Amino acid sequence: MLHAVIMAGGSGTRFWPESRRAFPKQFLRLAGEQTLLQQTWQRFAPLIEDGSGWVITGEKHRPHVADQLPELPADQIVAEPIGRNTAPAIGLMALLIAERDPGAILLVVPADHAISPDAAFQCAVRDAMKVIAADPERFILLGIKPDRPATGYGYIERGTKLDGGAFQVSAFKEKPDQATAQKYLDSGKYYWNSGIFIWRADAILKALQRYAPEIHTKLDKLRSHIGKPDWTELLAREFPSMPAISIDYAVLEKAERVAVIEAPFTWDDVGSWEAVQRLRGADESGNVAVGLHVGVNTKNTIVRGTGDHLVATLGLEDCVVVHTPHATLVAKRGDDEALRKLLAEIEKQGLEKYL
Amino acid sequence: MLHAVIMAGGSGTRFWPESRRAFPKQFLRLAGEQTLLQQTWQRFAPLIEDGSGWVITGEKHRPHVADQLPELPADQIVAEPIGRNTAPAIGLMALLIAERDPGAILLVVPADHAISPDAAFQCAVRDAMKVIAADPERFILLGIKPDRPATGYGYIERGTKLDGGAFQVSAFKEKPDQATAQKYLDSGKYYWNSGIFIWRADAILKALQRYAPEIHTKLDKLRSHIGKPDWTELLAREFPSMPAISIDYAVLEKAERVAVIEAPFTWDDVGSWEAVQRLRGADESGNVAVGLHVGVNTKNTIVRGTGDHLVATLGLEDCVVVHTPHATLVAKRGDDEALRKLLAEIEKQGLEKYL
Repeated sequence: MLHAVIMAGGSGTRFWPESRRAFPKQFLRLAGEQTLLQQTWQRFAPLIEDGSGWVITGEKHRPHVADQLPELPADQIVAEPIGRNTAPAIGLMALLIAERDPGAILLVVPADHAISPDAAFQCAVRDAMKVIAADPERFILLGIKPDRPATGYGYIERGTKLDGGAFQVSAFKEKPDQATAQKYLDSGKYYWNSGIFIWRADAILKALQRYAPEIHTKLDKLRSHIGKPDWTELLAREFPSMPAISIDYAVLEKAERVAVIEAPFTWDDVGSWEAVQRLRGADESGNVAVGLHVGVNTKNTIVRGTGDHLVATLGLEDCVVVHTPHATLVAKRGDDEALRKLLAEIEKQGLEKYL
Repeated sequence: MLHAVIMAGGSGTRFWPESRRAFPKQFLRLAGEQTLLQQTWQRFAPLIEDGSGWVITGEKHRPHVADQLPELPADQIVAEPIGRNTAPAIGLMALLIAERDPGAILLVVPADHAISPDAAFQCAVRDAMKVIAADPERFILLGIKPDRPATGYGYIERGTKLDGGAFQVSAFKEKPDQATAQKYLDSGKYYWNSGIFIWRADAILKALQRYAPEIHTKLDKLRSHIGKPDWTELLAREFPSMPAISIDYAVLEKAERVAVIEAPFTWDDVGSWEAVQRLRGADESGNVAVGLHVGVNTKNTIVRGTGDHLVATLGLEDCVVVHTPHATLVAKRGDDEALRKLLAEIEKQGLEKYL
């Protein structure tokens, strides 16, 4: 049976002040009327049976998940004692789900990406399940066809064609420089790694045992405590000592039966305020406003308000204005790195509580 | 005895969203740590005896006056039932004060201008009082020596020199066009009208009787009700029917014994956000911030925050950012008229409650 696992451990502040350390971007309404987490949940809902959806998130973010996904049973929101990258998190989820359903297939999806249309996503997952049905040891990734020579993503090189629309993965590539990215784009043989994976729980556990025994040993220690009163205590002891590595690095780059399916949907990693304009259609002046906004002589400006607070803009061009109850950001658009500088300055001035 | 009367009836929104219809600029901290009203009060405090300070304001603004000037006796805050420009307001104050002190001299000052230094202001008022001591029928205005060909102010032309540093006023001039303003500036014989007046209460009442009998008749009807239970009712009946005209137009342009004393202080009418930079010294980047502000690559920008709300700016130049609990304004500087357009748009969209 298919179980969907939402990876909701992110904790960035790239959407500050709307996102905060305590309220990262997966909980924000960045690409529509629902939050990225809620959109992610609904995207796979038609694929799974009731009770087969899971979320793994940071301990302090657990209440936000419960709040935004009220239909999710409390014991299927798993709180990481501390973030340890994707390999320990996926291992833990495979352990828990395999215990309940030994033949489980996992669909692992990041909580904070925008994908459209949902039907194309569902179609790709069904294709992946067919490949796995034929070959239970397969690890499948969804690859995004690049539309620009992006230097901010890792790339997957595809090799020989397999059955069911999949390709053998022939190599994983680190974030490239501009020239290399252009070469990848021109070749047509490279994909961006979407972080969306489909595989059997038992297969990934077996692969962790082989390629990342330091993780698997600890998972093994946890196994007999699942559902027991000392579970939380044991998890808090074992999990933080697992190495903080990605599933790509821990398993996929080493395993042999790794395949990629070209994603038939548009995908956005929602990496900065710029994404909001891409995802939410601008008006005829190029403005994208959420909340109460009145603009005069305002162009190409992203405005985000909250509640009944009015944001008024006058003579602005290419700006981002974000109002929240605790802080307001007004920034010239186009330099995503600068926000990092600003946040560092806020921290330096002793104002961490605003981050 | 000198009585000071603060004219606090203004109700503009040129400092929106910090100023609002219900909270106009005289109640804001625009030129220092105290509000313009408080600064005005303290400026004349050394000139008067306790109990000789008065404020006339709009009915709905009365609580703000009481709040900001706790030392002012409640019966010396006079509420206009409705704004009728300066002639009725000054007439009313002259009536009330003359009833208490028949020999009263009035110092009439707008609540919402910035003046510095206070000692120079006090010096000018003492000079005016000397002129009045010698000639009780004199009406004295303080004139501001222009430093630019401003087209937004009325001008006073000075005539023959009188005793005590005063000049006979030879003409009042409407707001001039650019060329005329330049001519006024070059001649050295013109002043801006500061709206600061010194005269005896009985003299201004007599002048109203002569030049504005439609006001004086109604003041006369009110006289016998001062301090009586029906005062408020009578005022509410008589005051609104007085003509809404300025004291300049009603009396000063017609009376003969009008003199001007050149103000020995710097003066600013605090007409727009631009004034805030003039009045509050900018930092080395040209920024003027009030409240919690962190800026990176921010230049020539005015930031106004409230409470513990953080305003963060990034890559901004020549902007005004004003955060208040109900609304936030982000505007490119340099076009004061545009704010009016924005406020009209806000009203048009049915959002008057934010004004």
